[in-house]
Amino acid sequence: MQKVTTLLIGGTVITMNKAFTVIPNGAVAVDGDKIVGIGPVDELLTRFESDDVVDCRGKYILPGLVNAHTHTSMTLMRGMSDDSRLDVWLYGYIMPTEREFVSPEFCYIGTQLACAEMIRGGVTTFTDMYYFESDVARAAVDAGMRAVLGESILKFPTPDAESYENSIAYTRKFIEQWRDHPLITPAIAPHAPYSNTQETLERCTEVALEYDVPLIIHIAESRQEVEDHLKEYEQSVVHWLNKIGLFRAKVIAAHCVWLDETEMRIFREKGASVAHCPTANLKLSSGVAAVQQLLESGVTVGIGTDGPASNNDLDMFEEMRLAAILAKTRTYDPTAVPARTALLMATRHGAKAVHLDKVTGSLETGKLADLIVLDADPLHNWPHYNIHADAVYSQVVYASKAGDVRHTMCHGRWLMRDRQLLTIDEQTLRDQSQAYANRIGEAFSVHQSDILRKLVAISAGMERSESFEVQVKATLKDPSQVEQLFDHPDVEILRATHYRQHDTYFLFSDASKGRVRYREDDRLNDSGDIVEVRARLTYTSPEKEREFESAVLLSHSRFIAPATRPLRFYQEYFKADKQEELIKERRRWRIHYQGVLFFVNVDRLIKPASDTYFIEIKSRTWSLTDAEIKAGRIREMLGIVGVDEQDIIPAEYIEMSDAPKASQ
Amino acid sequence: MQKVTTLLIGGTVITMNKAFTVIPNGAVAVDGDKIVGIGPVDELLTRFESDDVVDCRGKYILPGLVNAHTHTSMTLMRGMSDDSRLDVWLYGYIMPTEREFVSPEFCYIGTQLACAEMIRGGVTTFTDMYYFESDVARAAVDAGMRAVLGESILKFPTPDAESYENSIAYTRKFIEQWRDHPLITPAIAPHAPYSNTQETLERCTEVALEYDVPLIIHIAESRQEVEDHLKEYEQSVVHWLNKIGLFRAKVIAAHCVWLDETEMRIFREKGASVAHCPTANLKLSSGVAAVQQLLESGVTVGIGTDGPASNNDLDMFEEMRLAAILAKTRTYDPTAVPARTALLMATRHGAKAVHLDKVTGSLETGKLADLIVLDADPLHNWPHYNIHADAVYSQVVYASKAGDVRHTMCHGRWLMRDRQLLTIDEQTLRDQSQAYANRIGEAFSVHQSDILRKLVAISAGMERSESFEVQVKATLKDPSQVEQLFDHPDVEILRATHYRQHDTYFLFSDASKGRVRYREDDRLNDSGDIVEVRARLTYTSPEKEREFESAVLLSHSRFIAPATRPLRFYQEYFKADKQEELIKERRRWRIHYQGVLFFVNVDRLIKPASDTYFIEIKSRTWSLTDAEIKAGRIREMLGIVGVDEQDIIPAEYIEMSDAPKASQ
Repeated sequence: MQKVTTLLIGGTVITMNKAFTVIPNGAVAVDGDKIVGIGPVDELLTRFESDDVVDCRGKYILPGLVNAHTHTSMTLMRGMSDDSRLDVWLYGYIMPTEREFVSPEFCYIGTQLACAEMIRGGVTTFTDMYYFESDVARAAVDAGMRAVLGESILKFPTPDAESYENSIAYTRKFIEQWRDHPLITPAIAPHAPYSNTQETLERCTEVALEYDVPLIIHIAESRQEVEDHLKEYEQSVVHWLNKIGLFRAKVIAAHCVWLDETEMRIFREKGASVAHCPTANLKLSSGVAAVQQLLESGVTVGIGTDGPASNNDLDMFEEMRLAAILAKTRTYDPTAVPARTALLMATRHGAKAVHLDKVTGSLETGKLADLIVLDADPLHNWPHYNIHADAVYSQVVYASKAGDVRHTMCHGRWLMRDRQLLTIDEQTLRDQSQAYANRIGEAFSVHQSDILRKLVAISAGMERSESFEVQVKATLKDPSQVEQLFDHPDVEILRATHYRQHDTYFLFSDASKGRVRYREDDRLNDSGDIVEVRARLTYTSPEKEREFESAVLLSHSRFIAPATRPLRFYQEYFKADKQEELIKERRRWRIHYQGVLFFVNVDRLIKPASDTYFIEIKSRTWSLTDAEIKAGRIREMLGIVGVDEQDIIPAEYIEMSDAPKASQ
Repeated sequence: MQKVTTLLIGGTVITMNKAFTVIPNGAVAVDGDKIVGIGPVDELLTRFESDDVVDCRGKYILPGLVNAHTHTSMTLMRGMSDDSRLDVWLYGYIMPTEREFVSPEFCYIGTQLACAEMIRGGVTTFTDMYYFESDVARAAVDAGMRAVLGESILKFPTPDAESYENSIAYTRKFIEQWRDHPLITPAIAPHAPYSNTQETLERCTEVALEYDVPLIIHIAESRQEVEDHLKEYEQSVVHWLNKIGLFRAKVIAAHCVWLDETEMRIFREKGASVAHCPTANLKLSSGVAAVQQLLESGVTVGIGTDGPASNNDLDMFEEMRLAAILAKTRTYDPTAVPARTALLMATRHGAKAVHLDKVTGSLETGKLADLIVLDADPLHNWPHYNIHADAVYSQVVYASKAGDVRHTMCHGRWLMRDRQLLTIDEQTLRDQSQAYANRIGEAFSVHQSDILRKLVAISAGMERSESFEVQVKATLKDPSQVEQLFDHPDVEILRATHYRQHDTYFLFSDASKGRVRYREDDRLNDSGDIVEVRARLTYTSPEKEREFESAVLLSHSRFIAPATRPLRFYQEYFKADKQEELIKERRRWRIHYQGVLFFVNVDRLIKPASDTYFIEIKSRTWSLTDAEIKAGRIREMLGIVGVDEQDIIPAEYIEMSDAPKASQ
């Protein structure tokens, strides 16, 4: 008789092994962190004994579920803003909250809350993508859960890094720190193709290959994103990613709602897996992924809850059920994604999708002891049929609920017994999470983003959301000074335009609310006639992100959109405390300086009238290194133009205290 | 101080009244069966006192949910057969089970099981459509639930009536018996347009109008059904129903997945309501109903679970959530069907949909006390935001679960307190329901329907499912005798055809399994050349439904489908114990006799060879009265032909013991 740490006896053992063995009146022996025996009760009782014998009669014994895609920290944003337009939701709520509140503590508490819910719902492994993943790892380990954790990389500053280079540096340290932990698989997570550049994606792939860690990414979540990519790159997104070599890494791709057959083939050939997120895809109106077709194409598909900000829970039973029934209407075939397949996607195939199938995802001797005991006794699961061999999968997928999970074990350790969490204090979590909700709620009640929200809510379509520019402004003694720049051998003029710009600023006494600019841009021809008018809205928050040498600024425009309504509408709508008008004449050149794109403006104010000419030199940027290089180039150009240090004005026109307002 | 029976204090009262009043730290006073006060705790404590004071701090107080469409008795068939083709599911499992097992006891137990689950999930009112509704009513009343109960009417025999006339008679008695009960609203339920005739629908409408009771019906559930209707009636189904006057009744229409705008307009104009069943529509691959468009069209929409045979549970929280998120992808608009609207459809609008909004569906003084107390404390519902006034609806719809319902009250009576059912014994229900599942399981393991299931599973598309024929067969002394019939002034020949029929019968030693006939029909022209061949499969069960005078039989063919595979395939597939071949020459006439359609066959067997001529006269039928009338006509025609009573053969060719097999 072998003495083992735990012996589960008398349940229906649903192994999810390759033969799909189901053992009625079965038993599972666990010793240490591993499964050491599976079989009929009678047999196992002759081989094993234990001080921890768990009576599982009337229950199912299953592998712990694998949540293949989530953002656990975002549990703290659950229910913050639902049923909104996507841009309102993302730019009005999620991103402002992330900018201001996401911290190591936020991620630790959010992940603990998520772990508590997942353990209660039978999940033992999850795959995360967010920020401060070291703190997510701490929270997972403290909770006792297995996790694949991807540190997010974006081309924008993030809550935990002001540039993508810093994110990569953070990720390297994170991987090195956690890669030997028995519960944690660190990973790198370029957020999505549209939020990265070719360079950042290539760098992420290199890191993934260097450390042999998974690469987690969102792909083809919305139709818009797929169409935009096709327009910009003249190649569909998966083909493009393949071309730049991303699939050399072990890719876990979330969503994949809008893949075509050729893209599915790339997934199969490259061994990339899909994390299907049915609830989030419906709730954010992304669409219904072609799961049956993915499976038929030989792609490994797991199931994920996505983050609770877009779900709003972490309930894998709901996801399994929805994955099964949605596929039937997607194909108009009621045999698509049967219950057994849905459970497979949430267990063994889920583990395979996140590259952990060697250790978890099925009940097999030698695998790690990640298992759950599910109660078959609640009335919503009666009666029990067994006309078909697969009836037990129907019972689990179509009738069982997360609340029916009685015990959860991960890595041989009990995380929940009889619905009592053993590694997490629930009340502390309630208090901590509510404290964050209160702080965030207060912030929103007085917040600049009220204005942003109002703006987003009425805008027909966003032209740009967040963008960063390196820029400088200075007075010119003589407008012809700029010719010195254009005559320089390093400068090539790409385009010259002439505008008259009528700006109306909506200002608020609480400056932290930021401000909105309504601009009518009259484009003029050589004779000074108007050839085109366009109106746009821009929102800026007051803070500058960073100042470089010579007052070169990194500025942050949070929102630009076409203005489709008359000015009067906006006046009434924004109810600004103050409104200011500014008219200027602008000559604008698009140039290459040493092969890099810059914009040069030479402006003269018409209202308030002024004879001063101003020069602005700007360039868009997407990384800190890039910003620094461009700031240096701008300083060089200022030198060529002959601008002195004291002519530089570190302010926008509307902020210039010496603007001669009296002349209005 | 008014003494009341129950006082709920300290919860967030979500009234769902027309102003959508939400009262934090609110209270509800119940006296007898009615709500007598709603308001802030402080105010109500100055007005009311009670021996039953319920502390609802940290909880939501909500109206009891309304399940607008279900088939509660079918809870006993939960999980019997999932992920099958619709025809396999319906004709292979559901209908055979209904034919053999559905009884008053079955419906009582099934409904009690459903009530137990619904009470645990916060439902206080449900709308049912099934058989033996008097027993459904008994079960609902014993459980203490409010119910709108529609007795099903079909053009076929049903488990509780051998003809539609009997169903109507049952319904009248049912309505008269229950219409004064405080909890029960009896109703009539013509199952669907395709399972009824114009006559049966008109009769149902008359009954609904006569008693002023709701009329429950399935409409436009599947695309096929809608297309078939259009083909047959050259009018879309709702327009046709409108033409025949159905909407004069208070119509509750389930599913309505495939309505166009003009049909929605009829719904609004006629005050017909829709019971939206999102899970069942997905699971049976029917599609996604245009709920947002229905709402915008001004149609009242409730939410239903449908029966647990196609869901597989009765969880209105899942349905609300799914209704909300599905609508967002149906419209590609994440603001469609917000949480508040989903909850409205499950409460006040659900009550309106089932014509009970005067008494239930919202918490308002004077309404009946149908309410639930929902726990906001489980971790899957933390933290709680209130940036938006509607956040509380998000919490209920997107994060709460059926298992979070702590107390349920209907008609002022507690049905559940602290998750303990007070009107139903759970263990008895487990035992009773499992006993049925075992019996049904055994029946399927030995059953004729195995063959039917195999047949259905491989058939490309069903031509007819169940059909009933009145028929007679007799020997003819001389084939020319039939001319006497055709010369008769009451007979009009519509078409004459000539076939050679090659039949292969698959027979089983267990005759109760029924038999399958594979028939190749060679249609011959006047020269005897083959002009068309078609192959069909027919399944018949052995029992005859009824024998009329002169051995005129009511026969029951369970399945006819095109045979698209070679004969050898079917031989291997069915593994029959015996196989017999039969070839005959058939002249077939389609005639009107006294304006009624009949078929007349004159047959001669070629293999086994015989010189005997046989006459068959048949007609399809759909009601018992109709069958009796047609049996009479057939007897008259036999007289005209000159067939003697002793020439009648109450058997099919394959059963004729005197068939001259020796001559093979």
